[in-house]
Amino acid sequence: MALVKKPVTGMKDILPEEMQIRDYVVNIIKETYRSFGFTPIDTPCMEHIENLCSNQGGENEKLIFKVLKRGEKLDLANAKSESDLVDSGMRYDLTLPLSRFYANNANNLPSPFKALQIGSVWRADRPQRGRFRQFTQCDIDILGEPSNLAEIELIQATTTTLGKLGFKNFEIRINERRILKAMAAYSGFEEKDFDIVFIILDKMDKIGLDGVAEELEKSGFAKESIEKYQSLFAGVEKAEDGVQYLADTLGEYLDADVMTNFKDIITAVEATKGDFFKLVFDPTLVRGMSYYTGTIFEIAMPEFGGSCGGGGRYDKMIGKFTGQDVPACGFSIGFERIIMLLLESGFKVPSQEKTAYLIEKGYPNDKLCEVMKQAADERAAGKQILVTRMNKNKKFQKEKLTAEGYTDFVEFFNK
Amino acid sequence: MALVKKPVTGMKDILPEEMQIRDYVVNIIKETYRSFGFTPIDTPCMEHIENLCSNQGGENEKLIFKVLKRGEKLDLANAKSESDLVDSGMRYDLTLPLSRFYANNANNLPSPFKALQIGSVWRADRPQRGRFRQFTQCDIDILGEPSNLAEIELIQATTTTLGKLGFKNFEIRINERRILKAMAAYSGFEEKDFDIVFIILDKMDKIGLDGVAEELEKSGFAKESIEKYQSLFAGVEKAEDGVQYLADTLGEYLDADVMTNFKDIITAVEATKGDFFKLVFDPTLVRGMSYYTGTIFEIAMPEFGGSCGGGGRYDKMIGKFTGQDVPACGFSIGFERIIMLLLESGFKVPSQEKTAYLIEKGYPNDKLCEVMKQAADERAAGKQILVTRMNKNKKFQKEKLTAEGYTDFVEFFNK
Repeated sequence: MALVKKPVTGMKDILPEEMQIRDYVVNIIKETYRSFGFTPIDTPCMEHIENLCSNQGGENEKLIFKVLKRGEKLDLANAKSESDLVDSGMRYDLTLPLSRFYANNANNLPSPFKALQIGSVWRADRPQRGRFRQFTQCDIDILGEPSNLAEIELIQATTTTLGKLGFKNFEIRINERRILKAMAAYSGFEEKDFDIVFIILDKMDKIGLDGVAEELEKSGFAKESIEKYQSLFAGVEKAEDGVQYLADTLGEYLDADVMTNFKDIITAVEATKGDFFKLVFDPTLVRGMSYYTGTIFEIAMPEFGGSCGGGGRYDKMIGKFTGQDVPACGFSIGFERIIMLLLESGFKVPSQEKTAYLIEKGYPNDKLCEVMKQAADERAAGKQILVTRMNKNKKFQKEKLTAEGYTDFVEFFNK
Repeated sequence: MALVKKPVTGMKDILPEEMQIRDYVVNIIKETYRSFGFTPIDTPCMEHIENLCSNQGGENEKLIFKVLKRGEKLDLANAKSESDLVDSGMRYDLTLPLSRFYANNANNLPSPFKALQIGSVWRADRPQRGRFRQFTQCDIDILGEPSNLAEIELIQATTTTLGKLGFKNFEIRINERRILKAMAAYSGFEEKDFDIVFIILDKMDKIGLDGVAEELEKSGFAKESIEKYQSLFAGVEKAEDGVQYLADTLGEYLDADVMTNFKDIITAVEATKGDFFKLVFDPTLVRGMSYYTGTIFEIAMPEFGGSCGGGGRYDKMIGKFTGQDVPACGFSIGFERIIMLLLESGFKVPSQEKTAYLIEKGYPNDKLCEVMKQAADERAAGKQILVTRMNKNKKFQKEKLTAEGYTDFVEFFNK
């Protein structure tokens, strides 16, 4: 029986054209983040199943690829449920593994620690255009830094990188989980209902403020709370300085330090940023993951409908491993979306000159040695030399090579 | 309950020091292979379980991490064996996935196609020092090239790369599956027994020629065959030119073209190689994988006991996907062993100057903005600037940063 040619469902082969762009983008990312003092690290693609299923990952925990136990540990006859069969799974993001990594290695790491991770993650999402079950994530995180220096640096590093990749006119939307909560509390929602309220609020960009109000009503929340909530968002919208408006309005519902901290981030980013992006306070920004504890942010690109990356502060996650909380803040670039946008825009990687040596079939071995030496010398001098057999259909071969970026051809005939 | 801090059994976290070396080696590898016209590609880390378990991978097939079926496909109540539970697994090498990739995408690839792959593979080996269950492989392959131009280029590209990484005095050992078979046939072994004979022969470097003879006898082979086999190896040892000795001796057991082809490879590599490595004909070289059909080779390093990479020709593998054979030849560098050798030798990555800005706690936000601007300007000018909070124990902090390669410190105090 013939073997299966297609990749497994929802995953894809990456061909040379796309791979060139991916390598180029990875290099720019690494170079830029390194200039900010971020250090590359790596963790295994598999994680303990109990870590993956610890309610840190929100919806992603439903999408885990689980790995079968091995050898004697696998007792199929007595297995009653999935959990009896598996002891690890594929990571669904890079934040949980990084927290485990830091908990495991903190003694050997500087403090604060600035980590850069570029790696594959797996989610068994329903396959659809542009969405794959294995994809690359690219995260920077600052661990052990309690002050907003972390947020400021993360936003600067990420936007500088996007700028170097040629992106402009994008927005960084920023919010604070504690402002989000204060707004809900001020409006009269109970803390136990916050998660439901925020899930509905998160639909703002799709259904608008009235749509949100309608859904809140359907969920049985008090009309009075909903109206107060609506008027808060309308107030921010109208105000010249939305953040100041909330600082003035929320009063005792929000710690003054939280607001000062948040304002300082905005001021510092505004003062140092180029004019190729906007920083926008967005009180409706929620971010799905349950582990965020403070500032949250998201990249919005005009070329691309949805979010193109995001992040925030998650000060309580490392404590789940060690019992001792460590301040932590991260920013993830939507790597796959960036690649998609570059591919769709017809982006070409700037490349060096490439020469192809075409060798006719039957070319004698002693003369071939000469050609090989010549190629070796040219390569040593920094050139890219392809030595390849001359095909019968030489015209077609040259066309293909030209499409690959070869500009010079040298032909070696038998006589 | 606290989450698990350690990585899953047999896998490891990669810390900044090692990661720097890995990134450096990957860059040298990519740069060098690119100068030979190899093009990076990538395949998913998961493969169809039926591809992985198709008797191509030898012993590795026993070490597959299997991935649980999902959703309705998983019928635990009626599952009778492991194979009812899984539909995919983690790749154990890059050769099988490359063959699938080529079968799937040949229409969109140049011919011949020169592929470069650097990626993780997984094998559930018994954990031991220096051996991990997830590790990086680094392969180059030439697909669609029937002539020995493939072998010559693969050996040149691999040795050039090793040379650039600072390795010298290593050996490339080379043999031919068809010579191996002819030697066995000439000695009187039957074709059906070849695999057993070769498994014993493969122990030559551990047990010597007499040990091999002893084991062959224990396995019940005819004394006459064993003696003839022994004398062949002794003959190669004594001969000035071992290849020529076999060409003269094996006669009708070996197609003359095979010998010419093999000799041409040796001549071409010898004619173009630098003096930092030796090319050695090794008639006892077997290589375990069952898919090899012609030339086989292996890197032997004096600094490292065993093999440090290898490869060969596998002309029959792509046909298992398409029904039509495509000539194929590959060379895999022992990436993890190279990293281990560099780490053990105290190798340091050549790095640029790094400056750390230390900011005292409570440093006012408006002045921080100035510092941030300064850092941005320095980075734009190509420098690496770390902006970080000044710790209470500044001396210890500077020591740690110095160890990380920071040479300059600028301190920013509140007043």
